[in-house]
Amino acid sequence: MSGAASSAAPAGRFDNHPFIQACRGLPHDRVPVWFMRQAGRSLPEYRAIRGTGTILDAIADPDLSTEITLQPIRRYDVDAAILYSDIVVPAHAVGFGLTVTPGVGPEVERPFRHEDDLARLRPLDPEADTPYVLETVRQLVAELDRPLIGFAGAPFTVASYLIEGRPSRDYANTKAMMFANERLWHALCDRLADIAISSLQSQIDNGASAIQLFDSWAGSLSPAQYQRYVFSHSQKVMDAIADTGVPKIHFGVTTGELLPQISAVGADVVGVDWRVPLDAARERVGHGTSLQGNLDPTVVFAGAEFACEAARDVLRLNDGHPGHVFNLGHGVMPAMDPDVLTEIVKVVHEEGTVRS
Amino acid sequence: MSGAASSAAPAGRFDNHPFIQACRGLPHDRVPVWFMRQAGRSLPEYRAIRGTGTILDAIADPDLSTEITLQPIRRYDVDAAILYSDIVVPAHAVGFGLTVTPGVGPEVERPFRHEDDLARLRPLDPEADTPYVLETVRQLVAELDRPLIGFAGAPFTVASYLIEGRPSRDYANTKAMMFANERLWHALCDRLADIAISSLQSQIDNGASAIQLFDSWAGSLSPAQYQRYVFSHSQKVMDAIADTGVPKIHFGVTTGELLPQISAVGADVVGVDWRVPLDAARERVGHGTSLQGNLDPTVVFAGAEFACEAARDVLRLNDGHPGHVFNLGHGVMPAMDPDVLTEIVKVVHEEGTVRS
Repeated sequence: MSGAASSAAPAGRFDNHPFIQACRGLPHDRVPVWFMRQAGRSLPEYRAIRGTGTILDAIADPDLSTEITLQPIRRYDVDAAILYSDIVVPAHAVGFGLTVTPGVGPEVERPFRHEDDLARLRPLDPEADTPYVLETVRQLVAELDRPLIGFAGAPFTVASYLIEGRPSRDYANTKAMMFANERLWHALCDRLADIAISSLQSQIDNGASAIQLFDSWAGSLSPAQYQRYVFSHSQKVMDAIADTGVPKIHFGVTTGELLPQISAVGADVVGVDWRVPLDAARERVGHGTSLQGNLDPTVVFAGAEFACEAARDVLRLNDGHPGHVFNLGHGVMPAMDPDVLTEIVKVVHEEGTVRS
Repeated sequence: MSGAASSAAPAGRFDNHPFIQACRGLPHDRVPVWFMRQAGRSLPEYRAIRGTGTILDAIADPDLSTEITLQPIRRYDVDAAILYSDIVVPAHAVGFGLTVTPGVGPEVERPFRHEDDLARLRPLDPEADTPYVLETVRQLVAELDRPLIGFAGAPFTVASYLIEGRPSRDYANTKAMMFANERLWHALCDRLADIAISSLQSQIDNGASAIQLFDSWAGSLSPAQYQRYVFSHSQKVMDAIADTGVPKIHFGVTTGELLPQISAVGADVVGVDWRVPLDAARERVGHGTSLQGNLDPTVVFAGAEFACEAARDVLRLNDGHPGHVFNLGHGVMPAMDPDVLTEIVKVVHEEGTVRS
């Protein structure tokens, strides 16, 4: 764990970088941009080196993961790198028993069902359990001239994978357990919060300049459900790393109704999908909270001209607010043309002005 | 087409029924309730008679479809029947070429891609193309002592099935066509609007007391996208059947940001999923628009006690407003216990009071 005890943010190497400044809502000279899933199957250079193993195999190879993380930096000149990893890596590393099936996603041999399954989620010792992740972080920090974003899965979303056993549309098993066995639900989320904290803290200790907490599927909940079953666990994660001083991004999709709560758990930056116009989103998050997003990823399929005009629409709705990190509203998809993403980065860098 | 030319609603057989009164926001004595997908695989009596064909085979059998439609009325005493059919029936009937695969959903042999594919969507002649649907409607109207809801798929959602070729999470192909070939998109939606109009009008002519336009997946769009690509087509459908005087329900999920538009196309009732609390939803739809919903379906998996308390929460948020049709926020799922749904109906009927 970090020894940082000051409540003030410690001086960071990239404090003056537009990405970090935008996360903090401070003045800077141009709108920063990165893309969720900027590394991966959309890139031919990724497909060329990725090999045939699962993503968990690739993540266990620091040289490979470092290279994969750097590929989109070289290609797109985005303002931040995000560690090539997966939100289920810690649960895998403590032996829960899961794999990530190409084209499907995380699959669990024995889904989480009972009290007994808690024993399959012992605390994470990042140096011992995921040394490859930290070696990748260290290699990246040594090579990068811009911020590295570390990340973890939020308790709800990781729990949904462990309980459903595979990707789901309705999260019926997850919500059934949450509703019917609230004590077990909270015990599970408490363990997952501790695991997320250990993982994030270790990434920060090794040089990550910001973190993103992925609660991708929390938008399947109503505000009352989020408050009762999720809020305290995500807040615990955010609180535990607050004194590191690195910006904390909090992301999910279909979260329009939850934006005030997703901000209030302790996020410096709230990720917004394309369903909520940025100006409406800004009214829902706390004053001083930055926004990340929110270009509809599917515009990329319509070609560069259309996509760039849509990117300009996002910039227009942000209206020069300094608290804006440009991104897609969800991740890059494998079939996307990277050349269109290159053009979007150019538009954001050339036309994205920030009010002082 | 209907000969009704009056702008006033013609007197309907169930004008004083709580369901119709609630759709119109008029005083009535108790909150009406029905469930989307109340008929179907969740019911043992359905599984006992359904047979082994596809749903399209079952829909083509009026006696079977009538019985399936009536099963949940007998079991639950819900306040409305909804025709057992599928939103892709008209496209199937005009020969587009699709099937509905059990456990998957609609699948299209040759997805809609080009101008030429428009020819596969000739106008629907309901009496000639779907006589079995109208025979089912007539049988139901003869047997029922309560309103029958007819329905159609909205242009966007039907288009998404025809373009994707199978159920999708991101509607990438649909949105790519919409963005990149706007002329073809509007031509497609115009044909689908005409087909929906013919289908709805024929169901009303044969005795349906209300209709629901399913735009289940429109919530994948931003408000600006909805306005540009969808609004006018759904409005055309609603406008065309306005002079029949039957209440028009308009439903989709993850539509929180779209509720004002989903109302403004001409809906009398707006379906709301569980993500938006009913009191917030009421502020977003036009004055005089009723709401339908919005119990989270997954509460059913937590058992009767939990589900009934959640149903009471919905009633509390509605606070006795007369413009409320109780429903789930999305459909009944096959694994649900029908006995829990029975208990929910009892709670709504016994405890759902309406302000006069």
